[in-house]
Amino acid sequence: MITLDDIRAARDRIAPRVRPTPILRLSGLKQPLPWERVTLKLECLQVTGSFKARGAMNRVLGAKAEEVRAGLVTASGGNHGLAVARTAHVAGVPATVFLPSNVSPSKVEKLKAWGARIEIHGEVFDEANEAALDFARRSGALYIHPYADPFVVAGQGTVGLDILDDLPDLDAVLVAIGGGGLIAGVATAIKALRPSVRVIGIEPEGAPTLHASLAAGHVVTLPEITTSVATMAARRTDECILAIAQRDVSEVVLVSDEEMREAA
Amino acid sequence: MITLDDIRAARDRIAPRVRPTPILRLSGLKQPLPWERVTLKLECLQVTGSFKARGAMNRVLGAKAEEVRAGLVTASGGNHGLAVARTAHVAGVPATVFLPSNVSPSKVEKLKAWGARIEIHGEVFDEANEAALDFARRSGALYIHPYADPFVVAGQGTVGLDILDDLPDLDAVLVAIGGGGLIAGVATAIKALRPSVRVIGIEPEGAPTLHASLAAGHVVTLPEITTSVATMAARRTDECILAIAQRDVSEVVLVSDEEMREAA
Repeated sequence: MITLDDIRAARDRIAPRVRPTPILRLSGLKQPLPWERVTLKLECLQVTGSFKARGAMNRVLGAKAEEVRAGLVTASGGNHGLAVARTAHVAGVPATVFLPSNVSPSKVEKLKAWGARIEIHGEVFDEANEAALDFARRSGALYIHPYADPFVVAGQGTVGLDILDDLPDLDAVLVAIGGGGLIAGVATAIKALRPSVRVIGIEPEGAPTLHASLAAGHVVTLPEITTSVATMAARRTDECILAIAQRDVSEVVLVSDEEMREAA
Repeated sequence: MITLDDIRAARDRIAPRVRPTPILRLSGLKQPLPWERVTLKLECLQVTGSFKARGAMNRVLGAKAEEVRAGLVTASGGNHGLAVARTAHVAGVPATVFLPSNVSPSKVEKLKAWGARIEIHGEVFDEANEAALDFARRSGALYIHPYADPFVVAGQGTVGLDILDDLPDLDAVLVAIGGGGLIAGVATAIKALRPSVRVIGIEPEGAPTLHASLAAGHVVTLPEITTSVATMAARRTDECILAIAQRDVSEVVLVSDEEMREAA
């Protein structure tokens, strides 16, 4: 289980390689919100477009030189894939990203723009991921999991330290959940420093990954994913992430795709 | 010609009704820029999505009560139209927006979401604008021009005050130009307070509105607009804006649509 010290070490490592992102206090909205003050942490303005740049960078900067010499490998056409491709670019090592055959050409182009080598394997994500793991074993490249990795979770947790710097008097923090890496890191940082702050997770009704595991008391694999929000659609979380959530997450709220579209 | 005092008065008026927008220092880019430090002022996060909310709000808050009692009217399917619709919503008066028949349904929907009444008149923008002016004369509604209005220019100039608060040691500020209201306001504020800062305008090659008028020494009407960037495509600027630009703008740089697409 990661600690506050792991997250502080991650921040020291990655600070020169990621971007300080601004916050935006919501005001002047068409329909006022029921809360006095709502502030957004604009990680959408992070390098590569998401917080995933933090975790991937911490994984590589936390590794021994010989671990990354043969390059990086992952299976993701989304934000994690971009983050791994960009981290490899910065580290000066090759990145190989495995994708299933149904990936969109625009995602392939974005990955190639960061210099990644693309391997198309299988029909679905799980097959591409198996090929990525196999490639890692054969080539010695470092496989980076999108969330089931303590360095990745500690890297994402640096968002929590930044939020406390930006907003020392916050009452609650709302965190979107895919596999759970972001909320596990953020909750660890925030509860260690400000135990009174409530950490609340947000999941799609069509992918209640952490909600279902919290209800069951152990990690469960969802039989199906029905949300159209790809960044919040993991079939299972990880044991360490669940343990952190059991300790530090106040509740996980489920929202429909329709509610997310209306709020956007 | 507007002064620093007009812009300070504008800021006092509109501050409770617009949003303080964050800045973003660019770092970690794929292709490093040739300058040591480039910072963006994120007015795209302003209410209604652009700085236009400032000018329209200052026009209305700077008016006498009887001037706005019959509501607001303009002709714009873009950011200015949205700003007028939202200002009327906040002021509690009706807004009427005139549009030509080729306007996209999505623009109409956005305007209606702020409660604006839509009137479709004519085939091109100039015909819709004539109808808006005629409506103002008949109804007593306040016509708000997108840039040829000293209250609007002073309102846009509050961006300049904010930029100096955010970045007291800046060397140069780059401002995109449509009709020229934003750069006239920003240049007035910045040159009054920090005369050494260079104010540089950016125009599309296909709509060199202020560039052509500066070259001619008087306001010229462009024979045609060939840029596809609608927010930077006015056929003529205004005498007062040109006078400010002659005094306070160091240069206007022309860029191609292709260069803008690559940079985006």
